[in-house]
Amino acid sequence: MQPGTRIEKVMASIRQRIAARNLVPGARLPSVRALAKAMQVSTSTVVEAYDRLVADGTIGSRPGSGFFVAGPLAPLSLADIEPRLDRAVDPLWVSRQALDEASVLAKPGCGWLPASWMPEEALRRAMRGLARADTALLTDYASPMGLLQLRQLLSRRLAEHGVQAGAGQIMLTDSGTQAIDLLCRFLLQPGDAVIVDDPCYFNFHALLRAHRVRVIGVPYTPTGPDLPLFEQASKEHQPRLYITNSAIHNPTSARLSAVTAHRLLMLAEQAGLTIIEDDIFADFETQAAPRLAAFDGLNRVVQIGSFSKTLSASVRCGFIAAPLAWVEALTDLKIATAFGGAHFSAALVLSLLTDGSYRKHVEALRLRLAAVMPQAAARLKSIGCVPWIEPQAGMFLWCRLPDGVDAGDVARRALAQQVVLAPGNVFSSSQNASSFMRFNVSQMGSPQTMTVLEDALREAADHRLP
Amino acid sequence: MQPGTRIEKVMASIRQRIAARNLVPGARLPSVRALAKAMQVSTSTVVEAYDRLVADGTIGSRPGSGFFVAGPLAPLSLADIEPRLDRAVDPLWVSRQALDEASVLAKPGCGWLPASWMPEEALRRAMRGLARADTALLTDYASPMGLLQLRQLLSRRLAEHGVQAGAGQIMLTDSGTQAIDLLCRFLLQPGDAVIVDDPCYFNFHALLRAHRVRVIGVPYTPTGPDLPLFEQASKEHQPRLYITNSAIHNPTSARLSAVTAHRLLMLAEQAGLTIIEDDIFADFETQAAPRLAAFDGLNRVVQIGSFSKTLSASVRCGFIAAPLAWVEALTDLKIATAFGGAHFSAALVLSLLTDGSYRKHVEALRLRLAAVMPQAAARLKSIGCVPWIEPQAGMFLWCRLPDGVDAGDVARRALAQQVVLAPGNVFSSSQNASSFMRFNVSQMGSPQTMTVLEDALREAADHRLP
Repeated sequence: MQPGTRIEKVMASIRQRIAARNLVPGARLPSVRALAKAMQVSTSTVVEAYDRLVADGTIGSRPGSGFFVAGPLAPLSLADIEPRLDRAVDPLWVSRQALDEASVLAKPGCGWLPASWMPEEALRRAMRGLARADTALLTDYASPMGLLQLRQLLSRRLAEHGVQAGAGQIMLTDSGTQAIDLLCRFLLQPGDAVIVDDPCYFNFHALLRAHRVRVIGVPYTPTGPDLPLFEQASKEHQPRLYITNSAIHNPTSARLSAVTAHRLLMLAEQAGLTIIEDDIFADFETQAAPRLAAFDGLNRVVQIGSFSKTLSASVRCGFIAAPLAWVEALTDLKIATAFGGAHFSAALVLSLLTDGSYRKHVEALRLRLAAVMPQAAARLKSIGCVPWIEPQAGMFLWCRLPDGVDAGDVARRALAQQVVLAPGNVFSSSQNASSFMRFNVSQMGSPQTMTVLEDALREAADHRLP
Repeated sequence: MQPGTRIEKVMASIRQRIAARNLVPGARLPSVRALAKAMQVSTSTVVEAYDRLVADGTIGSRPGSGFFVAGPLAPLSLADIEPRLDRAVDPLWVSRQALDEASVLAKPGCGWLPASWMPEEALRRAMRGLARADTALLTDYASPMGLLQLRQLLSRRLAEHGVQAGAGQIMLTDSGTQAIDLLCRFLLQPGDAVIVDDPCYFNFHALLRAHRVRVIGVPYTPTGPDLPLFEQASKEHQPRLYITNSAIHNPTSARLSAVTAHRLLMLAEQAGLTIIEDDIFADFETQAAPRLAAFDGLNRVVQIGSFSKTLSASVRCGFIAAPLAWVEALTDLKIATAFGGAHFSAALVLSLLTDGSYRKHVEALRLRLAAVMPQAAARLKSIGCVPWIEPQAGMFLWCRLPDGVDAGDVARRALAQQVVLAPGNVFSSSQNASSFMRFNVSQMGSPQTMTVLEDALREAADHRLP
C-alpha cells in the first residue's frame, strides 16, 4: 500500500467514527502512538493524517493536549447569504449589494469593470514572479511610506498629468478609500463642514458620516461644480474641505473645464479650504482633462489614486500625493490606524505597471468602453432613460428616468430579480436625484439584464404617484 | 539579428539621445513609423521598445499624443532615506524606526519575527497556487465581510480557544490594527475615556490619540490588570472601553489568570464597559491561557486577531469576532472607510492555513522561541538588564535596566549605531517605565547587536543623573 493510501485510510477511519457519533464534538482523539498501533501504520502516517484533518477543519489541536473533534459550524446569519431586500436605500446600499457574495445576475449599479475585462494573464504572471521574490518582500511589513520604487513610478505617472510630486510626497495606502479616510482624519474635526458635489460618489457620504462632519452638497454641472453656489456655500458654512473627482466625475462622467478649475481654486484660496481630488479613473481618460492638483501645485489640493479600477480590486493599493509638510503626520496616522501597508500588494502593482503590458491593457479598456458606451446609451434611450450628457470616457452613464418613475423603486424591483442598480439618491446629499440612475456600461452586456430593467421600469411606472 | 536584440538596439538608441540631451525632458519622440523607417526595423519592434521604455520610466505616453521624454525624478525628502535621530521618543517612535526602509543592523525593539523565521516555502507555494485561481479572486473586490471559507475556518480556530463565534460573527479586516480601529470608530466618541494597560502595546496609544479620546492607564501585574486600580479607574473616569492582550501580553509577556479574568469581567459588567481582546499572539502560546472572550461568550468582549506574526506581515489579513448585533454596522464602517477588504490576501491566508503545514510551522516557531528565550535572558542579565518575569511563551522580554539608566537615552544611542530598541516609556501612559526596555529575543542573534547594546548602556550610565 502506498503511504498516501495509508494516510487516507486513517483519515477515513476517523471521519467514520465522527459520522457514527463514536467521537462527538470536543472528544479527544486517540493518541498518535495508540492509533498507529491499532491500525498497524507508522506514527508519521497518523501525524500526517491528523494534520490534514486539522487543515480541513474536521478536527482541532490544542498545544500540549493533543487532538479533538471540531464542533459543528455555528450557523451563518442570513444577512450573510441573501441580498438584503429590506435594507434602506442609503449611501451604502449599492456598495453592500454590489459587493455581496451572493451570485447576482448582473450589477449595472456597481462602479467597476467585469472580472473578464481585467488583465488576468498579466496578474497570473506577476504572481508567479512574486512567488520567486525576496523573502523580506514576502514576509516583512512595508516601509512606513510604502515601496520606494512604486512611489518613484507614481511620481513619473503623475507628472504625465502635470502634477509635480516627488516620491517623498507620495504615500502608499491600501486603497483610494483609505487614502481619503486618512486625509479626513488629518484635516477634519467632528462638526466641521465639508463640500461635496451633488451628485457625488456615494461612498463620500458614508465616509463623511463616519467622521461626524456636516456634508454640504453643491450642484455639479457638465463642466464642474456650480461656482456661484459653491461660493455661497463656502461663505455660509465655512467648510474645511471639498472632495471631488475632476477628470471623469462619478456618477455623471462630467469633466472639469480649465476655466472652472481656475476659478474654483481662487474660491478655495479665499475660503481657506483644502481640496481632495480623487483621480482613480485617470487611466480611462481619452483626452487629458485639467487637474486641480496640477493647477495648484499640491499646495491646497491633495490628489489620491488607486489601481482597483484598471488592474485588480482584489490586490489593494492606493496612494496620496500631498504637500510635503503633511507627509510625516499622514504616515504617523497610517501606522497608528493600520500599522504597515500592504507590502505584497504594492510589489504586485509595481510588477504589473513595469512589465510593459499596462499601457496596452488600459488602451484596450478605453477602446472597449468607447465601443459599448454608445450601444448602452441607445438601448437605455429606447426604454426612456435619457443620458444627462454624452460621456467622453469612463464607464458611467447618468440617466434621467421616465417622468414620475422613482429610481429607488426601480432598484428595489430589479434587486428582487438579482440585478443591482444604483439609484440617483444614493449619490445626492439633497435627495434631489430620485429620477436619476447611474448605469455602468461595462456591466450591461446581457439581454436578460435589459429585460429585468425594462420590467422594473414598467412596474415602477404603473405604481408612480399621480 | 534576433527580434529581442533589435528591440534593445532601438531602446539603446533612444537612451543615448536622451543622455546626449538631443532629446530633453518633455520632448516628443519620433513617431513609431518614422523611427522604424530610420532604423530599418519593423514598427512592432519600435512599439515594443517604446513600451519597455515607458515601463521603466524613461519615457511617458499621453493618450492620443504619442511618446515623450520623462522628466527627471523629483528629489526624495531626506526623511525618506535616513532614520530620524531627532524624532521625539513618542508612541510611534519604535514603529517608525523599525518599519523604515533604511537597512539597520538589528531591530530588537520591533514586534515581529525575522523574515528567515517565516514559512517562506509555504508562502511561495501558496502564491504559485493563487496564480492559478479563479479570475474573480484575482480581480474582484472581496465580499463585505470577507472570504466565507476563511471566516468558517477562523470560527473553528476560535472554538479551540473556547471562543464560540459563528462565521456570521466574524468580519475580515486588512490587519489587527484596522480591526481595533474599526471597533474604536464604532464604540467611541471624541472625549470618551478608554482604559489601557500600563505598560501596553505602544500603538494603542497612537491609535487612541487618533480617536481623540482620554487614555487611562491601569498598572499590569504578572496575572492581569491590577483589579483594585481598575475598579477605581472605572468609577472615576466612566470609561467606555478597555483594550488589552490576555494570552501573551505585550510588552510584558504576562498571562491573564482565570481568577483575574473572572473578576475583571464582573467589573466590566458593573461599569458597562466593552473590552477589546487583542489576541494576535495566540499561536505562540504553549499552554492555553484564559480568554476573556471565551468566559464572556462575545457579549461585552470582542476579540481581534491577525496572521502578521506567524505567516506574513506583507500579506495583510486580520479579523474581528464580535457580538452578532454589531456585525452589520461594523461592515458598513469598513466599506465606508476602506471599501472592499483584501480579497487576495484573505485567499492567500486561507491557502496557507489549509495546506497542512501551518501547525508544524507554528510548533517549530514555539520551539525556536523557547530555545532562544533563556539564552537572551541570560545575556541580558549579564549586562545588568533583569527580566520582570520569566515568560512562558512568545518573543518579548520586559527588562529593568541598571539603576538610573534612562531607556530613551539608551535607545537613541543604539539608533545612532543602527540598532532599533523599544524603550519602556513608549509603552507607558504614566511615563513610569523609563527604566524598562522591551527586547524581542528573536531579533538578538548577532553578537554585534549585544555589543551595541552594551556600549549604549555604558554610555547612558556614564551620563545618568547623580
